[in-house]
Amino acid sequence: MITHATASTALNAVRETTPLVSCITNSVVTNFTANALLAVGAAPAMVDIVGEAGPFASIASALLINLGTPTPEQREAARQAARAAHDAGVPWVLDPVAVGALVHRTALAHELLDFKPTVIRGNASEIIALAGTGIGGRGVDAADEVDAALDAARALAQKAECVVAISGAVDAIVSVSEILRVGGGAEMLTRVTGGGCALGAVSAAFVSAGRTKGLGDLESVAACHIAYSAAAERAESQAAGPGTFAPLFLDALYSLEGAELKRIPLS
Amino acid sequence: MITHATASTALNAVRETTPLVSCITNSVVTNFTANALLAVGAAPAMVDIVGEAGPFASIASALLINLGTPTPEQREAARQAARAAHDAGVPWVLDPVAVGALVHRTALAHELLDFKPTVIRGNASEIIALAGTGIGGRGVDAADEVDAALDAARALAQKAECVVAISGAVDAIVSVSEILRVGGGAEMLTRVTGGGCALGAVSAAFVSAGRTKGLGDLESVAACHIAYSAAAERAESQAAGPGTFAPLFLDALYSLEGAELKRIPLS
Amino acid sequence: MITHATASTALNAVRETTPLVSCITNSVVTNFTANALLAVGAAPAMVDIVGEAGPFASIASALLINLGTPTPEQREAARQAARAAHDAGVPWVLDPVAVGALVHRTALAHELLDFKPTVIRGNASEIIALAGTGIGGRGVDAADEVDAALDAARALAQKAECVVAISGAVDAIVSVSEILRVGGGAEMLTRVTGGGCALGAVSAAFVSAGRTKGLGDLESVAACHIAYSAAAERAESQAAGPGTFAPLFLDALYSLEGAELKRIPLS
Repeated sequence: MITHATASTALNAVRETTPLVSCITNSVVTNFTANALLAVGAAPAMVDIVGEAGPFASIASALLINLGTPTPEQREAARQAARAAHDAGVPWVLDPVAVGALVHRTALAHELLDFKPTVIRGNASEIIALAGTGIGGRGVDAADEVDAALDAARALAQKAECVVAISGAVDAIVSVSEILRVGGGAEMLTRVTGGGCALGAVSAAFVSAGRTKGLGDLESVAACHIAYSAAAERAESQAAGPGTFAPLFLDALYSLEGAELKRIPLS
Repeated sequence: MITHATASTALNAVRETTPLVSCITNSVVTNFTANALLAVGAAPAMVDIVGEAGPFASIASALLINLGTPTPEQREAARQAARAAHDAGVPWVLDPVAVGALVHRTALAHELLDFKPTVIRGNASEIIALAGTGIGGRGVDAADEVDAALDAARALAQKAECVVAISGAVDAIVSVSEILRVGGGAEMLTRVTGGGCALGAVSAAFVSAGRTKGLGDLESVAACHIAYSAAAERAESQAAGPGTFAPLFLDALYSLEGAELKRIPLS
Repeated sequence: MITHATASTALNAVRETTPLVSCITNSVVTNFTANALLAVGAAPAMVDIVGEAGPFASIASALLINLGTPTPEQREAARQAARAAHDAGVPWVLDPVAVGALVHRTALAHELLDFKPTVIRGNASEIIALAGTGIGGRGVDAADEVDAALDAARALAQKAECVVAISGAVDAIVSVSEILRVGGGAEMLTRVTGGGCALGAVSAAFVSAGRTKGLGDLESVAACHIAYSAAAERAESQAAGPGTFAPLFLDALYSLEGAELKRIPLS
C-alpha cells in the first residue's frame, strides 16, 4: 500500500539525505537527468567509463543504468557498475530503453538481470520485451498498455527479485505480490525527451532515501512516481508547450510541497 | 515552387503521421534535436551504435546523420545506417557539420555521398567544402554567403541526386534544376547551439511525411524551412535572450498554426 | 588587482572578438556549455575526437579540457589538444572534474599538467586533489572550503605556471603571488548541472579576449568570474527555481551590462 503521507515522507527523505546517484545513461538525456536529480534534492554523478564506473557505484548511494545509447564503453562500464552495486548492496535501477529488437541493449539487459536490479523501470513494451513475452516497441514509444504488461512485470519481479515500474497513463509499480497504481501526471511529459529516463534516476534517489526511513523499495518507487506526477501536473498547468514545460517541471520538482501530492490518484 | 499552403500541408502531415526519425548526431545537440522532433510532432530515436544503427535505420521513417562530434563508433554506425537506409528506400539527411579542414568528418562525409542522401543540409561554408570548391569555415560558423554556395549546391545535387539546403539569412533549397528561397527566421537562432542541427532532423521528418501526401522532397524541405522560420520568429518576439528563446522555440514548433507560415517571405 | 572597470573591458572584449573556444567536455554539459559561450559572445566548437582535436586546438582562440566523462577517445583527444595548444601558444583551461578517487581522470589530469594549462578551474576538493594534498570530494560536490585550498592552488600555480580559480561561496583566483576574490553569485547555480563546467569554457573565452586588450590572464579570469556571478544574480532574482534559472542565466550572460558588474563584491 502507498499513501500520500508516505510519499511526502519519502520526498523529504530525499531532500534531507541528498543521495548521490551514479548514472550511466544515454547521451540524449544526461543533462535533463542530472538537473532532475539536483532539483529534487539529490546529487548526480555521471560516471560511465570502464575502470571508474565500478568503484564509484560501490560508494554511491544508488546507481542508474539506462540503456538508451549504449556504446561499447558504456556497456562494459554498466557491467562493472552493476556488479559493484550488487556486491556492495547499493540499490540500482535498470531502465531497459527500447529493448526487444535492438541487439546490443537487449543482450546486455538480460545479462544485467543477473546482478539483481533493485528496480526495473520502463514502458509496457520494454517490460514485455525484457520478460521475453513480446518483441518491444518502436524506440521509446509505449505501444502496449500498462495492464497488458502486468504478467511480464510480475515474472521479472520474481526472476530478479525486484520492483518493476511500468509507466503509462496510470503507472503500475509491481512486486511479486503487490500492484500499486499511480495516476495523474501530464501528457506533456511525453512530448519532452527524457521524462521517463529521468524518472528512473529519481527513483534511484527515492529508494536510497526511503531505506533511511525504513520504507520498502516498492513504497519508495511509488512515492517517486507520485512526486513526479505531481510536479508534472503543476508544470503542465503553467506551460505554453513542451519547451517551457521542461524548466517548469524542474522548478516543480524543486519546490514541490506535500499538499500537492494529494492530487495524485492512487489505488 | 513552394507555397504557404503546401508548407501547411506538410506540417500537418508530420503531425498526422508521427514519423520515426532515427538520429546519429552530435553530443552537443542530442537533447535539443529530440525535443524539436517531439515538438513538431515526430518521434525521435537516437540509435547510433554499431550493430543497431543499421537495422533500425531500415525500419525508421527517416534517418539523420550529423557529423558534429563523430566518434569512431558513430562513424561506423553512420556507414551502416546510411547503407541500410539507402537499400531500404528510407529517406535520409546528411548534415556535414564543419567539414573541410577536419579530417575524419570530411572523409566520412565524402564516403557517405555514395549512399545517396535524400537531403544535404548545411551552411554555405560546409556545402562549398563538401562540393570540393572551398575549404570550409571555422567550426559551425557560416563564413560564406548563401549565394556563393549555389554552384556548389547544384554540383552536389547532381552528384548525389539529392536536395541541398543552404542555411543563411535567406535559406536556399536547391535541386539540379530549381532554387527555392525561404526568408524570415530569427537572428536569435544563431545564438543557440543546435539550431541548424535540429533543422536537419526536422527536415528528415518533413520528407518522410511529405511523401505520404505526394509532395516532392524539394517541396518538403522548403516547407520545413518555412515552419522552422515561422517558429523562430514567434519565439524571438517573445524571448528576452537566447536562453528563453530555446524553450519558446520548441513551444512554437509545437503549436504553430498554418496562418503563421504566411509571414515567411518566399521566392 | 581586479576592478569592475577591468571586468567590463574584458566582457566587451569577448563580445568584440568572438573567440572560438574548442571544447573537450563531458556529455552532461556540452549543450549548456555551448549555449553559455554563445550567450556571452564567444563561438563554441566541440572537437573532441582523436585526429581532429589537436589540429583544431592549434587554430582555435582558446581550448577547454573538462574531465567530467572522459572516454578513452576523449582522453587521447585531450592529450593531442593540450599538446597542440601548448605548442601553438593557444591559452587553455583544465577543469579536473572529480579528480582524486577516480583513476583515469586523475592520471590524465596529472599528465596534462605537463602541457602547462593557462588556467586550472575547479572546486576546492578538486584543486586539493590535483595538487596532491588531499583525496578529492564526492563527484562534483565541493566538500572543502575555498580557503582550505589556497595552499594547494598556489602549489599548482607554481608547478604549472598558471592561474588557478577555485569556485565556492567566494571564489578565489590565484597566481603564485596574488589572490583575487570574487563574491556574489547565486546559490541556484549549484542546483543546475554544468554551472562550474560552463564557467571553465567562458574563462577560456575571457583569457583569449583579454589578451587582445593587454589584460593579464589573472585579471581576465577574475573578470570572467565577476561577469558570471553578476549574470547568476540577475537570473536568480527572476527565477522560480533551477529549471527557469538556467535559461534566464543564459539571457543574463547575453545582455549583461557593465553597471551590473558593480554589484559583485571584490577583494
